[in-house]
Amino acid sequence: MIYLITPTHSRLEQKADLVRLSYTLLHVYNIHWIIIEDSDIKTPVVSNFLKTSGLNYTHRNVKTPPEVKLTDTDPNWLKPRGVLQRNAGLQWLRETALKKKLEPAVVYFADDDNTYSMQLFEEMRYTRKVSVWPVGLVGGLRYESPIVVRGTVTGWFTYWKPQRPFAMDMAGFAVNVRLLLQHPNAQFTNAVQRGYQESTLLSGLGVMLSDLEPKANGCSKILVWHTRTEKTKLKNEDKMKQKLGRGSDLNMEV
Amino acid sequence: MIYLITPTHSRLEQKADLVRLSYTLLHVYNIHWIIIEDSDIKTPVVSNFLKTSGLNYTHRNVKTPPEVKLTDTDPNWLKPRGVLQRNAGLQWLRETALKKKLEPAVVYFADDDNTYSMQLFEEMRYTRKVSVWPVGLVGGLRYESPIVVRGTVTGWFTYWKPQRPFAMDMAGFAVNVRLLLQHPNAQFTNAVQRGYQESTLLSGLGVMLSDLEPKANGCSKILVWHTRTEKTKLKNEDKMKQKLGRGSDLNMEV
Ligand SMILES: O=c1ccn([C@@H]2O[C@H](COP(=O)(O)OP(=O)(O)O)[C@@H](O)[C@H]2O)c(=O)[nH]1
Ligand SMILES: O=c1ccn([C@@H]2O[C@H](COP(=O)(O)OP(=O)(O)O)[C@@H](O)[C@H]2O)c(=O)[nH]1
Ligand SMILES: [Mn+2]
Ligand SMILES: [Mn+2]
Repeated sequence: MIYLITPTHSRLEQKADLVRLSYTLLHVYNIHWIIIEDSDIKTPVVSNFLKTSGLNYTHRNVKTPPEVKLTDTDPNWLKPRGVLQRNAGLQWLRETALKKKLEPAVVYFADDDNTYSMQLFEEMRYTRKVSVWPVGLVGGLRYESPIVVRGTVTGWFTYWKPQRPFAMDMAGFAVNVRLLLQHPNAQFTNAVQRGYQESTLLSGLGVMLSDLEPKANGCSKILVWHTRTEKTKLKNEDKMKQKLGRGSDLNMEV
Repeated sequence: MIYLITPTHSRLEQKADLVRLSYTLLHVYNIHWIIIEDSDIKTPVVSNFLKTSGLNYTHRNVKTPPEVKLTDTDPNWLKPRGVLQRNAGLQWLRETALKKKLEPAVVYFADDDNTYSMQLFEEMRYTRKVSVWPVGLVGGLRYESPIVVRGTVTGWFTYWKPQRPFAMDMAGFAVNVRLLLQHPNAQFTNAVQRGYQESTLLSGLGVMLSDLEPKANGCSKILVWHTRTEKTKLKNEDKMKQKLGRGSDLNMEV
């Protein structure tokens, strides 16, 4: 079984991003989607979307506290995103894995706006400890990648902070759920420097460079892209209100 | 049969956008994808992608001449995009429809970066002349939409140039292929004002407001979103070259 942990937050493009991501996931068998809203409530938009998605899912919510939350004017890299949400997903997964006899399972952290090839899921499905692969369109480069020498990861092709223990994006690895149970306290945290989320989790799981299993044909194929959806500028809503006395119908779910 | 006409152009995010769009289309039956590259050649990226896509397709190419082509520094609305490509798609479709006995068919202009709900295709499948529906995240509004009064389109909910005969986005309508054959010269053109592509085609097809068939529950549901994928900034490729003597491996297809 593949468990996907996806933090998601309200924004104009949220439903569009979730819809197209769900269409990718519908092509993958034995997958369970853990979706955690960055919100005080489970919103109707996400709840209704999930109900009709045709996917197996678990829906949770936890709000990022205001002191670490990105504001509309912050550059998006200023603060960590999705930390509490991914941890909530890990917690649910550990509890669930302990309750039932654990079948072989893998966990992957799938942001809601990335683009995933179907083939990526087949690569990660057979992960003994931690699988790794390149990620396209990230780090100010065409791609970032583990450097693989004779089947072993020896370092990181990345410009930004290559000295990090695991200098890769969240989209670049999957973990066998067994490791989560063997290291029950390993998780993400808002209390580390920028770029150290992945290293915090993997170090907490006792992973060493030599444990990493290079996938995607020895890290030579791009099967996931760190795409981002452009923020819509509602520059005419106000003008419309002035002209017509009303803007778009807020009962229309976008 | 639904024929989709999709212009596509080379860019860093092209393959990612095509991959996720193809996963949507794989959920739709009786669909034929006419994909026209804005290029002098059929590129290996698109050719290989299509070959393994599992979709029925026709692959063509025609380059936008430099005098009307957007440059990297132009704002994206400055010049029309995809005009020659959509016309090439129309031409192929007319020729093909004339060659074989025409089965009922509909044509839709599907840009490669939008987000489509599966349900949209079921709405357009039964189009007598021209179907219409709202489009999300467009025109500086949450959505633009035909205004429907007692089942008939009476005007356009749009801020920008509402006086256009058909004041809607390319993603907002589908046409019965019969109309293309009855009006063999109707097509798009680079020689009209901004925003008049849709009106040019539909006027050329002899369509009147009263011909429009409102879909998506009387134009009350958003089933397509005018999403745009953020342009990736390769700000570290040059720095990487200075540091390592080389940047990313250009043999890695992204
Ligand atoms: O305040 C926020 C911002 C983002 N996210 C989620 O965290 C993940 C990463 O965020 P984003 O895609 O914006 O980050 P980037 O593309 O910059 O890596 C995505 O699934 C978002 O929906 C969140 O839960 N709360
Ligand atoms: O020089 C170009 C720019 C765009 N396009 C295609 O034309 C369509 C509309 O372009 P875009 O999505 O950039 O327009 P917008 O999102 O601004 O409507 C898309 O399918 C693009 O791939 C093209 O063929 N040549
Ligand atoms: Mn993202
Ligand atoms: Mn577009």
